[in-house]
Amino acid sequence: MPARMFHSKTDFKRALADLPAADAPSQDAARARQAELTKPPGSLGRLEDIAVHLAGWGAGSKIAPKISADKIKVVIFAGNHGVVAQGVSPYPADVTAQMVANFSAGGAAINALTAAFDLALDVVPLDLDKPTADMTEKPAMTETETLTALNAGAAAVEDDLDVLCLGEMGIGNTTAAAALAARSFSGSGTDWAGPGTGLDEKGVSRKAVVIDHALATHAAASKNAFETLRRVGGRETAAIAGAVLAARAKRIPVVLDGYVVAASVAPLYADNADITAHCIAGHMSAEPAHQALLQHLGLAAVLDLGMRLGEGSGAALAAQVVRAAAATHNNMATFAEAAVSNRSKEVGDEC
Amino acid sequence: MPARMFHSKTDFKRALADLPAADAPSQDAARARQAELTKPPGSLGRLEDIAVHLAGWGAGSKIAPKISADKIKVVIFAGNHGVVAQGVSPYPADVTAQMVANFSAGGAAINALTAAFDLALDVVPLDLDKPTADMTEKPAMTETETLTALNAGAAAVEDDLDVLCLGEMGIGNTTAAAALAARSFSGSGTDWAGPGTGLDEKGVSRKAVVIDHALATHAAASKNAFETLRRVGGRETAAIAGAVLAARAKRIPVVLDGYVVAASVAPLYADNADITAHCIAGHMSAEPAHQALLQHLGLAAVLDLGMRLGEGSGAALAAQVVRAAAATHNNMATFAEAAVSNRSKEVGDEC
Repeated sequence: MPARMFHSKTDFKRALADLPAADAPSQDAARARQAELTKPPGSLGRLEDIAVHLAGWGAGSKIAPKISADKIKVVIFAGNHGVVAQGVSPYPADVTAQMVANFSAGGAAINALTAAFDLALDVVPLDLDKPTADMTEKPAMTETETLTALNAGAAAVEDDLDVLCLGEMGIGNTTAAAALAARSFSGSGTDWAGPGTGLDEKGVSRKAVVIDHALATHAAASKNAFETLRRVGGRETAAIAGAVLAARAKRIPVVLDGYVVAASVAPLYADNADITAHCIAGHMSAEPAHQALLQHLGLAAVLDLGMRLGEGSGAALAAQVVRAAAATHNNMATFAEAAVSNRSKEVGDEC
Repeated sequence: MPARMFHSKTDFKRALADLPAADAPSQDAARARQAELTKPPGSLGRLEDIAVHLAGWGAGSKIAPKISADKIKVVIFAGNHGVVAQGVSPYPADVTAQMVANFSAGGAAINALTAAFDLALDVVPLDLDKPTADMTEKPAMTETETLTALNAGAAAVEDDLDVLCLGEMGIGNTTAAAALAARSFSGSGTDWAGPGTGLDEKGVSRKAVVIDHALATHAAASKNAFETLRRVGGRETAAIAGAVLAARAKRIPVVLDGYVVAASVAPLYADNADITAHCIAGHMSAEPAHQALLQHLGLAAVLDLGMRLGEGSGAALAAQVVRAAAATHNNMATFAEAAVSNRSKEVGDEC
């Protein structure tokens, strides 16, 4: 990857318009292998789908039909948001930097999860001392700031990853996420606002008003992906969009974490719906609008554990399902190898 | 554990009537710790519930409020069923022994999963050359055979496990499972029969008729747990019931696999609904009646991945969620330790 993937808005638009496709022959080979493994056809459910997904998108050296999910990294992007001045979070903005320090010290949930599951972890703080502008008043970022954030995301995607898990941290960023979703897929603040880190009903209503205010401020502007990411997103949401594009260019499958990460992909999807083809939705967040957002993105969540923490925590857990998919696909015996009788044609036909 | 936990039906009934309770002070300590960890309250969702569950049932040496999920074992019980003569499976009965050989050789899905996740695995074949009697004609097992199977299940539960995952293998055992569920919770063959390893619609209808035939054969008999396990169950389903009781006596939390394992607990539940207090439903199987069965048992599945393989595969995957629950509970920093600002009272109050 060059130092900067996106030198201009044009580079970004070109990358989004020109997405590589999955490796269809490798996926066909994976499907053929699944049919020969010692199990009833389809009985591993989602694991079989994920195995075929990995076969299509594997970046590393891959001897079809085997697949690799050894090198998995969680990357967390962190940013601060001018819109917190509107009282959209029960936590003070200082918590973003404090949690980044907690990540460095190894004390956060994502540290516990990556340590338990032997996943690599990178944390990328993005100008935390320089919050974005308040999106209710003007664009959250300049074009240069947006490009810098997109490039930071792209630069975090190593060439040799088998799977990239994307997460985020940023007090106020469920407000930005709701605005990104609304501008990408229509709807109002009420449709896309939720409790985030723990607002009560009154707090959610106020947050919806803030989002509507932001949407009105930018209503006349072009709704292309770049402008949406710039006007109502944050540095970390733009970085996630950049990472998703860079991973696609490198054919690396991506596991999305929760609501904010999915919302970061929404502006890309609005311009090119093929952008989610290499993505897996790690989990269904407890944030209420996440379900509608995944439906818009054409994604089905792997896990549904009522989590709403961010930090890539849901994606890190889903990575274990991805590993299970690869392990069964690669290491199970075939009916022939194990001398196990396959489905009885005679009985099967009459049953 | 003595060589035999159950010397008689009376021992079994006594064990089922006299179930130890969860350690409430340890659970309270775990809840208090969860509230202090660096995350919004409740934001780890099901992981927090599982952490409290483990605190209440941990068997090993446990310094509250920390919990242990290091020593996890998957135990698979295998049995053969006389009812396969009625054409209830698309696979021949020989496959049970062939799959046990596949487990030994390391070629099955559960081998791939336990190797990938560093879980211990025991496979317990139960007189595979001696199928149970055809339950449509008479009780599947004698009282002695039932006790032997219950004791085999209990004997497989080691004293020092942190978590026990239960699985099964047995061609024809979704038919036995449906009959166990129907006798425990009412309903007919149509309510509880499903495709199992892959019957088509006509096959499922015929299976339902076979189940109704079995239910009619035993309709007049007592519906207590022992008689239900004996008359319409199999060796592996009785062993699972014995293992669940033995684990409870040792205060070891249990992760149930899919439909057949849940159905093995159903007769126990019908006699004492407290039996599932130490149990976690690992996943929602694609077998259609599993959902109703878990509702009857008062359990909510951790995973829902469309799996229907058995072998403990869903439980082994769910064990990773259990490990995540323990890892976050034990290893996250508190707000005080990490110097992270907790929820702002001022903003929180007005939001």
